[in-house]
Amino acid sequence: MNPRPAPWKNWKHITKLDPDKYISPDDLATIVSSGTDAIMISGTQNITDHKVSRLISLLKGYSIPKILEPVTPDVVSFADVHYIFVPMVLNAGNVDWIVGKHKDWIMNHTIQWESVIPEAYIVLNPDSAVAKLTSSRTNLGHDEIIAYARYAEKYLHLPLVYIEYSGMYGDPRIVKRLRESLTEATLFYGGGIESRQTAAEMSRYADVIVVGNVVYRSIEKFIETIP
Amino acid sequence: MNPRPAPWKNWKHITKLDPDKYISPDDLATIVSSGTDAIMISGTQNITDHKVSRLISLLKGYSIPKILEPVTPDVVSFADVHYIFVPMVLNAGNVDWIVGKHKDWIMNHTIQWESVIPEAYIVLNPDSAVAKLTSSRTNLGHDEIIAYARYAEKYLHLPLVYIEYSGMYGDPRIVKRLRESLTEATLFYGGGIESRQTAAEMSRYADVIVVGNVVYRSIEKFIETIP
Repeated sequence: MNPRPAPWKNWKHITKLDPDKYISPDDLATIVSSGTDAIMISGTQNITDHKVSRLISLLKGYSIPKILEPVTPDVVSFADVHYIFVPMVLNAGNVDWIVGKHKDWIMNHTIQWESVIPEAYIVLNPDSAVAKLTSSRTNLGHDEIIAYARYAEKYLHLPLVYIEYSGMYGDPRIVKRLRESLTEATLFYGGGIESRQTAAEMSRYADVIVVGNVVYRSIEKFIETIP
Repeated sequence: MNPRPAPWKNWKHITKLDPDKYISPDDLATIVSSGTDAIMISGTQNITDHKVSRLISLLKGYSIPKILEPVTPDVVSFADVHYIFVPMVLNAGNVDWIVGKHKDWIMNHTIQWESVIPEAYIVLNPDSAVAKLTSSRTNLGHDEIIAYARYAEKYLHLPLVYIEYSGMYGDPRIVKRLRESLTEATLFYGGGIESRQTAAEMSRYADVIVVGNVVYRSIEKFIETIP
């Protein structure tokens, strides 16, 4: 079995850009040169092939690592991105988001597997679009969250566990416990990081923080989140 | 990430014994010395801790590789078996059989991970107890079955794919296509092998055939299935 690429081993900070939101060329240039380690192209609502392609082409002149994180099999392009991070939502209520969409993608498309990285998602904000889309069971005790993460690491040997609070700032105590529980997988945290303080707090426990919404509100605040 | 053990690399034939069925000490001795490569302790219905322990203790004097394949988290014992093969049913209709039971097991038990092997199951006999228990979608086209298997191999990097026709003899054409599609995972086939001819046919494509029910009907027929 060929080893998977693990580009994130030295990463600390990823910027998540939403194909459904407008970003100016100036802001994009600022983001790319900010010190962020990679750009993730990812959104849940109103994502179309056209919008994804447009964002990818805006990034074309930049050499920063580019990750596409598709929400459905229909908007996956291997052109002009370095990696495709494909989530499986461990606490989804519906098998589609664990295996079904993936199976359809594999059945109907040609896949460059050497670029594909599986992500074990645990979705924890019940009000987020991703929780609703995937019928995620977000009302989990800490022990249950840890068990999901260990399922990913110990049972499936997945390379990364992604704690997704999408749209809200999460509980640093659970991120700390995950840090202490995982020994091999890289821990990603995303959700509600919009300041130097929240970035620093979650960075103490998560290997990589993912910063998204704030870039659309205040590019100055975004810059504060860079370690 | 520590590599998983891959004891099956030279195996061709596994005998599956059901803790809910009676096997005589003589028949057990015949099975163990038949040339089968391993004994798998596995059943779907009426499985209790007591029945599993009884079968394991009957096997105690034998050095043949012993695998426990648990149906629920409550009947897992690491004592006196070499491996725990833990299925995830890729075409289950209910997340419990893909991630839920596993998460509960991890949350509530101490696990010796070095003995645990994940199995990617695809359940194809709609009338089998396992299909009913897991609400498996068995009405799959060949391309869909291949896509599930590739999900296991290419996306999750799982070490083995298990085609389970439990109780009926399957379609050798799909097993042949799986053989041609998989490049890394070991292919297990189980279901309806009760003769020299069916064992030989499926062995042409599957790396390992799993033979079960026939041992309870005719030990002579069972012996015919050994390669």
